[in-house]
Formats: sequence, structure tokens, C-alpha cells
Amino acid sequence: MAGSGKDHDGRRIAFLGTGLMGAPMARRLIAAGFSLTVWNRDPGKAEPLTAEGAVRAETPGEAVSGADVVITMLTNAEAVGNVLFERGAAEAMAPGATVVDMSSIAPHFAREHAVSLAERGINHVDAPVSGGVVGAQAGTLAIMAGGDEAVIAALADVFAPMGRVTRVGPSGAGQLAKLANQQIVAVTIGAVAEAMMLIAAGGGSPAAFRDAIRGGFAESRILDLHGKRMVERQFAPGGSSTNQLKDLNAAMETAKVLSLTLPLTAAVHAEFSEFVANGNGEKDHSALLLHLEEKNGRRGEDQ
Amino acid sequence: MAGSGKDHDGRRIAFLGTGLMGAPMARRLIAAGFSLTVWNRDPGKAEPLTAEGAVRAETPGEAVSGADVVITMLTNAEAVGNVLFERGAAEAMAPGATVVDMSSIAPHFAREHAVSLAERGINHVDAPVSGGVVGAQAGTLAIMAGGDEAVIAALADVFAPMGRVTRVGPSGAGQLAKLANQQIVAVTIGAVAEAMMLIAAGGGSPAAFRDAIRGGFAESRILDLHGKRMVERQFAPGGSSTNQLKDLNAAMETAKVLSLTLPLTAAVHAEFSEFVANGNGEKDHSALLLHLEEKNGRRGEDQ
Repeated sequence: MAGSGKDHDGRRIAFLGTGLMGAPMARRLIAAGFSLTVWNRDPGKAEPLTAEGAVRAETPGEAVSGADVVITMLTNAEAVGNVLFERGAAEAMAPGATVVDMSSIAPHFAREHAVSLAERGINHVDAPVSGGVVGAQAGTLAIMAGGDEAVIAALADVFAPMGRVTRVGPSGAGQLAKLANQQIVAVTIGAVAEAMMLIAAGGGSPAAFRDAIRGGFAESRILDLHGKRMVERQFAPGGSSTNQLKDLNAAMETAKVLSLTLPLTAAVHAEFSEFVANGNGEKDHSALLLHLEEKNGRRGEDQ
Repeated sequence: MAGSGKDHDGRRIAFLGTGLMGAPMARRLIAAGFSLTVWNRDPGKAEPLTAEGAVRAETPGEAVSGADVVITMLTNAEAVGNVLFERGAAEAMAPGATVVDMSSIAPHFAREHAVSLAERGINHVDAPVSGGVVGAQAGTLAIMAGGDEAVIAALADVFAPMGRVTRVGPSGAGQLAKLANQQIVAVTIGAVAEAMMLIAAGGGSPAAFRDAIRGGFAESRILDLHGKRMVERQFAPGGSSTNQLKDLNAAMETAKVLSLTLPLTAAVHAEFSEFVANGNGEKDHSALLLHLEEKNGRRGEDQ
């Protein structure tokens, strides 16, 4: 194991999943003085971290052995379940240790993992993030946490190097917040795309329209960033429409479990479903404008 | 007439409609050195401006006589049409003068007015505003202009004391931009309300959720201002749901004229229609959250 952490009560962290997001997050923890053991399914993605002081483990079980905090940053719920319960991580963890799952998965999976781990005396916090690779590198991620209040509070110095943590509620609430965040993003993209469509169809200039309304009640990060992509007709991702649809699928599934009718979420889900089914999954989610144009038999300048 | 304008080539302005918005706009023009003649249907709302140097006229015709620029700031298209074509304003204007209609009316009415005025050799610019009474007082309105480029450019010093002008396109495009702006506002309110609903139904804290996602991709003026109202359950208007519905009705009507399908606009229009039909028109538009709660058989804390 690496040398004991400097200012962190000697706590040791295992970091499982050192991909695009996980690697920069792990780096920031190392830089903050934590002892890190890292594991990745493809070991080539974990190896570079050893140069910065991490110890690379061959298996999830080996990585978590002796760890106080186990952070998972994996592709989906299946991968998280696999690593925790099939590849031996949960089994190798000591009672009293804590799993912090920072992957984005559906809330009910997070609650299932929490229940299974609780049976072994292991704490679980769901703590998905927003902010992308840039936020991971800069340590400015928005971390949405669900789980026991005291457990989350005790992780303050673990979260601090990665970003700003907010406890949103009990187990699963962090994942719920991530979904709700993505749902706002999707609906707001739809709002801006429909406005651009209306302006263009009515003979106005979408670029001038966007300039005119900046800073008013319609102002948003989406109007700023995605509105610009729509005006410039630059639809390379960014965030792909496939990923946006994946989030919306999870939001709709969660709404169904809760017996909720969410009309705008349902409407934008239907549009992204069509858009991706038509082969546009790899376009940026702001390209929903192209879908609207297609639907209305109108073509933008670049088509 | 009042003394000639100081730095404005002696141009004289008639201001028709000195209500909640019009009065502070007229005040800023007077302060900028323009000679102003003012008229209001209820003369009591025009009279106070005479103390600041405006001349009050008894009729629209008297007000516009000798004016180079006629600004209208009236309730709706009917009022604008009435003042211009039935109460004698158009008839009393000199060819080469310009009507700047800053009222919010449907784009097709704006184009009709432009055509009728053009027949008399009078220019027309539609220039509705966003920013409310506060923006009118501070001279920070967003002014969305439609009409001839040279005519709008020649009005630069007239617009300057009132706010920031952007030409969005030809006649009607200013009104179109105002509608599209209001449509983004409505859909974004719906996005935030549905997210709040999802969080609350799933056992999370809407207040903590809002805190967690501030500054990320879901950030907007609506999340800031209207999201706060939802969290605090303060639904006094602000912007009433009746006014929001009025804008959405106009947006839907315009979309229909243009043969456009706008799924999110249609969805939020349906929700506001129901909400207002259920007697909630005087609540702030952020109260769409209450409608969602009602629709889903869930009640918020204050009900």
C-alpha cells in the first residue's frame, strides 16, 4: 500500500473505475494527500496513476482490502453491481467501511446496492456528478449525494478535492437529482430549439434573437452554450443525443415507478427517441433542432 | 409643444400609452432631452409627465401632429389598431414619420399595421420589450425590433435611453421574438417544476436539489428566480399564469399560421390552459408546480 494519508486520519481510499472521469478525480484525491489504491477493468487505464503515488490492484477485492472508503466510477448499474457483488469488492470490504458510488445509475439500483451492502454492515452513498471531464480535472464537479446524513458529512474531506457536495436526501436521492438535472437540460434544449424554429420559420434571425434575449428571463446555460451550437449549426458532441436519451429513459422509468405524469419530460423523451431512432444518436443533444426541422419539413442552412 | 430636443436633431416624439410600462419609458426619453408629447386613454396617467417637461395631448391625433417618431405602448393589438386607425393617429402623421410599436401583440397584427401605414408613407417598427417595470425604470429593457434595417438604425438614440435594441428581422420579427422569449420562459418553468416534482415524489429535498445543480448545465434565470418561488412556495405574481397563457396562446396561434409543430410548447400550453381554467390565473407562472402536484394527486406542504 502507498504511504498513509497526510491530513485525513490515515483513511485509505480504493478507487474503482479510472476512466475518462475517474482518472482525473483519482488524481485530485492523490494530490490532496489521500492514500489511493486503484483498479480498472482495463489495467492500462489505472497504471498511469501509479506514477503519481497510487497503488494499482489486480482485482476489485484486492483494491478494497483495508480501504475505509471505496469510490466507484463505472459505466452503468450493471458494471457497479458486477464489481461490488460478483467481482468480490463487497466481500473484501470491512464492516464500517463506505461505498461511494459516483457513477450515474437509476435510483432504484442505488437503493438496492445500499440494502445489500447494509446487510454486510457497509455504508453506501450514491453521489453522481455533473460537470464533465473539465469539472473532474478542475475539482469543480457538482456532487449530488443521497444517503445517511452523518455518513455523508464524514466524507466532506473526501469530496472536497473533487467538487461541491450537496446532500439531496436519503439513499437514491443523489441519482434522482442527477436524472432531474438531465431532464431540465433536455427540456431546456427543447425550449430553445422550438424558439429557434419559430423565429426561423417566421423569417427572423435565430442569431439576432439569441443576442436580443440574452440576460433576460429566458437566459440559461443552455441558451448560452447549446443555443450557440444551434445558431452556428455545430452539432459535434459535446453531450451525445444517445446519452441524453439514456438519461431521459431513466427519468421516465423512475417517473413510472413513482406513478408520476410529467408532460414536458414525456414530450422531449418522445422527440429524442425519434431523433436517435433516425440514426442521429452521435450528434450533440442541441441537434434536437435538426429533428424539429425534419419534423416540420423545413431545412436549415447546412442541409 | 415643449422646447426642441437638445442633441436629437430637433426630432419630436409622441408617446401614446403612458401606463405602468409606458410612463417610466417616457420619463427616460424626457431625461435624455427629447421633446415629448404624451397621450393616454385615462389622462390622469399622462398628466404627471407634464411636470417633467412633456406636453399632454387630448387626442392621439393631437399628440402625433408634427411628431417624427410615434411610440405606442398599449395593452393589446386591438388597442394599437384603435389608436392608430380609428382615433386618428395615422391620419394625423406626416409621411416619412415612424411608428414604433413597443406593445406586445401577435406578429401578424404587426405586419398588418406596417402595411396599412406604408400605404400612407409612414414607417413602422415593431419593438416589444422584455424586462418589466424595473427594466423600464432603469433603461435596461431588451428591445426586440422587426422592420426595415435603416429605419431601425435611425432610431438608435431613441431606443438608447430605454434599453438595448436588437433587430431580429423584418416586420413582425420583433413580436415573434417576444413570443419565442415567453415560450422559452414557459417551457423552462415546466422543466424546473417537473424536476422539483420528481425530486419531491422520490423523497429528496427540492431546496437541496436546486442548491446542488446551481451553476451547472441546468442553470437558468428560471431556476434561480422561479425555482426559488417553487422551493419557498411563494406564488404571488410576479408574472401571472393568465399572462403566461396569453403569450402561449399567441405562440401557438403563430405556430399554426406557420404550420409548425412544437411539441414542448404545445405540452406546456395544455398545462397552463388547464391550470388557468381551474381558476389559478392570478397565481405566478411558477405555480405550474401546483398544477403538476394536483395532476399527480400529490400535495405540497402548503396545501
